[in-house]
Amino acid sequence: MKGEIIAIGDELISGRVLNTTSTFAAARLLEAGHEIKRITVIGDEPDIIDECLHASLKRAAFVLISGGLGPTSDDITNEAVARALGLRLVENAHITRKIREMERRTGHKASRTFKEKLSMLPEGARLLNPDGCAAGYELDYEGVYLFFLPGVPDQLKDHLVKRVIPRLNELDPRRREIRQKVFRLFGLTEMEVNERLYDLYELDSGIRIGYYPVFPEVHLSITVKGEDGPHVDEVFEQAVAKVEAEFRADIVAMDGGTLEATIGELLMEKGLMLSAAESCTGGLLGKRVTDVPGSSAWFDRSIVTYSNRAKMEELGVSAKTLEQYGAVSSQTAREMVAGIRRVSGTQCAIAITGIAGPGGGTPEKPVGTVFIALSVEDEIMVHRFLFPGSRHEIRSITSETALDWLRRYLAYGSKLPGYRFES
Amino acid sequence: MKGEIIAIGDELISGRVLNTTSTFAAARLLEAGHEIKRITVIGDEPDIIDECLHASLKRAAFVLISGGLGPTSDDITNEAVARALGLRLVENAHITRKIREMERRTGHKASRTFKEKLSMLPEGARLLNPDGCAAGYELDYEGVYLFFLPGVPDQLKDHLVKRVIPRLNELDPRRREIRQKVFRLFGLTEMEVNERLYDLYELDSGIRIGYYPVFPEVHLSITVKGEDGPHVDEVFEQAVAKVEAEFRADIVAMDGGTLEATIGELLMEKGLMLSAAESCTGGLLGKRVTDVPGSSAWFDRSIVTYSNRAKMEELGVSAKTLEQYGAVSSQTAREMVAGIRRVSGTQCAIAITGIAGPGGGTPEKPVGTVFIALSVEDEIMVHRFLFPGSRHEIRSITSETALDWLRRYLAYGSKLPGYRFES
Repeated sequence: MKGEIIAIGDELISGRVLNTTSTFAAARLLEAGHEIKRITVIGDEPDIIDECLHASLKRAAFVLISGGLGPTSDDITNEAVARALGLRLVENAHITRKIREMERRTGHKASRTFKEKLSMLPEGARLLNPDGCAAGYELDYEGVYLFFLPGVPDQLKDHLVKRVIPRLNELDPRRREIRQKVFRLFGLTEMEVNERLYDLYELDSGIRIGYYPVFPEVHLSITVKGEDGPHVDEVFEQAVAKVEAEFRADIVAMDGGTLEATIGELLMEKGLMLSAAESCTGGLLGKRVTDVPGSSAWFDRSIVTYSNRAKMEELGVSAKTLEQYGAVSSQTAREMVAGIRRVSGTQCAIAITGIAGPGGGTPEKPVGTVFIALSVEDEIMVHRFLFPGSRHEIRSITSETALDWLRRYLAYGSKLPGYRFES
Repeated sequence: MKGEIIAIGDELISGRVLNTTSTFAAARLLEAGHEIKRITVIGDEPDIIDECLHASLKRAAFVLISGGLGPTSDDITNEAVARALGLRLVENAHITRKIREMERRTGHKASRTFKEKLSMLPEGARLLNPDGCAAGYELDYEGVYLFFLPGVPDQLKDHLVKRVIPRLNELDPRRREIRQKVFRLFGLTEMEVNERLYDLYELDSGIRIGYYPVFPEVHLSITVKGEDGPHVDEVFEQAVAKVEAEFRADIVAMDGGTLEATIGELLMEKGLMLSAAESCTGGLLGKRVTDVPGSSAWFDRSIVTYSNRAKMEELGVSAKTLEQYGAVSSQTAREMVAGIRRVSGTQCAIAITGIAGPGGGTPEKPVGTVFIALSVEDEIMVHRFLFPGSRHEIRSITSETALDWLRRYLAYGSKLPGYRFES
């Protein structure tokens, strides 16, 4: 079924808060075979809610409406929807009971506004999760399935995955077949990826290719849609095989995978532990690898030596090296990686030193100059890079390049991957 | 002027990429006095682009259309818009020249598709940035100002700030007066913040209060609108003073500020250097403080001791403590903070040890159990917390709590801030 999302909230339309929930919902719905054709973001204004709801009712088989169901004064979705659809607001006995229980438990009396905001729902509303406190609900209107969800990300996600998607699957047993795979690539531009896939479209008319830069990676999605399951499967497998053959070493991860998780798998396979010495990334590399649950099995430590004194004390970088070549130099990076291997005893280490800016650049070493050292077993490699962009971007691409280089070395033995920003 | 945004891209509507650019644009436009009333996100489909564009033309004084201007095969905005508005596509000589220059410079010939996609624009299009390569443009249609912007975040932001906003200010000299201030609060729920501001609405009918949780903070925006500048200023000042008095120590930063930057200012004021010893946060705390440009003036080092061995070797945590109380214990946190102060020589340090999950929890120390130690000059304080949520959320709220505690101690001498998750 094709649907739409209406996301309601002044915080969204004024640009103060990123609309992460609609993105999440669209992705999960697509995986389940329900395509979102439009996401409309509006403020907490009854007239605009009214107009949007009626427009979506004309076009969509189902509509997800998120936000404005809470107890604060700016939560007006229930009233606005009741008015727009000509429905009465009626007290939901289940929610009233929940609020009473909460009052007893906490010994704190809820205000009248609090109670009314939460318990008065448009007539016909069926609670999506009667056990929970957050009042997401379902409502059928003129043959369109409406789902009202709380805007708070965790509550929305919970309602969507546990209630809305199973319900849509139930309502629409003959849904279209959709297969999708996402490839995360690093080291190529969007255009380079695109040029190498021109002939993929010729495989089948049901193929759709999406290119989107997710800095500093390029993500590539292959989607195949059709009515006939076995045919869709066949085309999908061919397309995936072609992409894998074309990009091989540039693929850092697939679907929900990440570069960090790929590295974890490679290190585990080879029985290696990783450590790191960071300067300009300030802990970002350590943060990224420990995003992976269970990373303690392959990550030992990272020493963030932000000051020169820390580089000498923690890693044994020599005062002479720092004085002669500077903290941002090939020599310092080499001594940092040797130092972290020595103190940690790991067989594999990364060291990073650079100038993330905005200040600190010189004609010889402008902002964006970064030295990365990689040491695995008997090998020590150091490379100089010149990354463009803001402080945030330079730190991001630095940590990505360091991790990707490690991945390529472990998986393919690449000592000099040939990145465009090598200098 | 009131406007709308249409964001075009399969990557947005399928939920693969967060729509960060519309959020950015809406925020910057509001600051400049131009309100966005609707953001519509759609895929790369000509019919839907057509319908959306015509609907926006009926409602808005200006429309920002982003995405689909690039050279890849899924970029179809120019063709779709020309068709929708009944305009011819004509070659833009300026862009053609730019492409030729690029060909000469790189020695690489651009493909016909590349050239056509970039240089054929709807007739009447005026380039927003003739010096640049990305082809954002302006087009007036039936009295509505249309701005077509590249979807790539950096390019969009650059066009918006340097070209679109100055142009809108020029087109609309008598714009409405809008003042906005954002307060970033930590330690209170959205509901608690709301309850303490009920009477703020009584100050003036032009006040609008927005509450929005940006995990783990609650952001509060105070907006005052009106025709009369001096009156708007007066109401705004009163409202801001009231919020400041009400929340005082709970305000971690204002407007574009961050908790990290606030801490940097406090440390500089007091002439203190900070160091950190991290376990479960894996470098996140170091990463956050070094997000601040110039943080080397007040941040010395962070040692990420992910393994027990690293805790002993780097920080001198005793084997006996680890054995008797465990790595996640008050005793270990205390020895970590003493250790990082000793090795770094800083007068101020934070240590963190905890269980971020999803695995590793026990009945006595469930997932979310975190010990934070703070040491400033002669003081050593250790606190136990039990944070709810996912691995990502636990790590995020842990780093936030540690930094916020430091802020409260430096600014207000708070030894026990009384957070809800203290256990």
